Amino acid sequence: MDRAAIATWRAVTAGVLTTDSGALIGAPFSSTARFGIEARPTATTPEELLGAAYASCFTMTLADQLASAGHSPIRIETEARVQVVRRHGFWEIAGIRVHCSALVPGIAEREFLEIAHAVRIGCPIATALRPETTLTVSLSQVTTDDALVPHHPA
Amino acid sequence: MDRAAIATWRAVTAGVLTTDSGALIGAPFSSTARFGIEARPTATTPEELLGAAYASCFTMTLADQLASAGHSPIRIETEARVQVVRRHGFWEIAGIRVHCSALVPGIAEREFLEIAHAVRIGCPIATALRPETTLTVSLSQVTTDDALVPHHPA
Repeated sequence: MDRAAIATWRAVTAGVLTTDSGALIGAPFSSTARFGIEARPTATTPEELLGAAYASCFTMTLADQLASAGHSPIRIETEARVQVVRRHGFWEIAGIRVHCSALVPGIAEREFLEIAHAVRIGCPIATALRPETTLTVSLSQVTTDDALVPHHPA
Repeated sequence: MDRAAIATWRAVTAGVLTTDSGALIGAPFSSTARFGIEARPTATTPEELLGAAYASCFTMTLADQLASAGHSPIRIETEARVQVVRRHGFWEIAGIRVHCSALVPGIAEREFLEIAHAVRIGCPIATALRPETTLTVSLSQVTTDDALVPHHPA
């Protein structure tokens, strides 16, 4: 099974991207957005797309692993921030900072952290990547009762 | 400098993605699209986004390297096809098949292939990835005169 994207170069510093699913259709990407020349980049970049690949993979795998461990996440939100640096004249990806915020009723923080760190290094996109990832977590652990029944203070 | 994306999980098998630039805003991704359960996937997947990251990086870097070598590409189009396999119960990225079609006036095929293969392994996304890439090429080498002056057969 495979999934594909096509990049077409149109100018000296920019092109457009289209993916199989249609999530991107003629979406602009540019070297000015990529290397920080624009104050407010409006075009996507390879690093942003790598962040999207990692964030979606981590989130999907975490939901799956929590379910396998008997937990039903109500919400998972993951930001993946890809850091680009210039070393010896070449741009390279220095690392990926991941922050995951989750609402998982009844799970112990220690169990959540164990699962999340295993996913950080073990999900399919993670195993395909060389750069280091760092993970921070915000866990909300309401019980199922808390989630379903509003509190009515006496 | 960094570039970020946020994935939000909304259901048992699906979520949405948003990137810094706005190229993706609440774009659906799903495990059914990812693992081939849907006949015609309409949601994006981590592998498709990795393909988009690679295709855009390869294309941008190739344009830059061709310019550095004194060539002005008229058109570059690159497809990156990310292959996913299941091994020992785990999904993994088996490789990336890249096909580049380019119109570069006056370049020798050998020089183009040398530059393209260097970019295949040396562009920033490539150096961040573990899976093997394979590259095929379709090169059109019209001269500058051919490109600018239509042929008028006598």
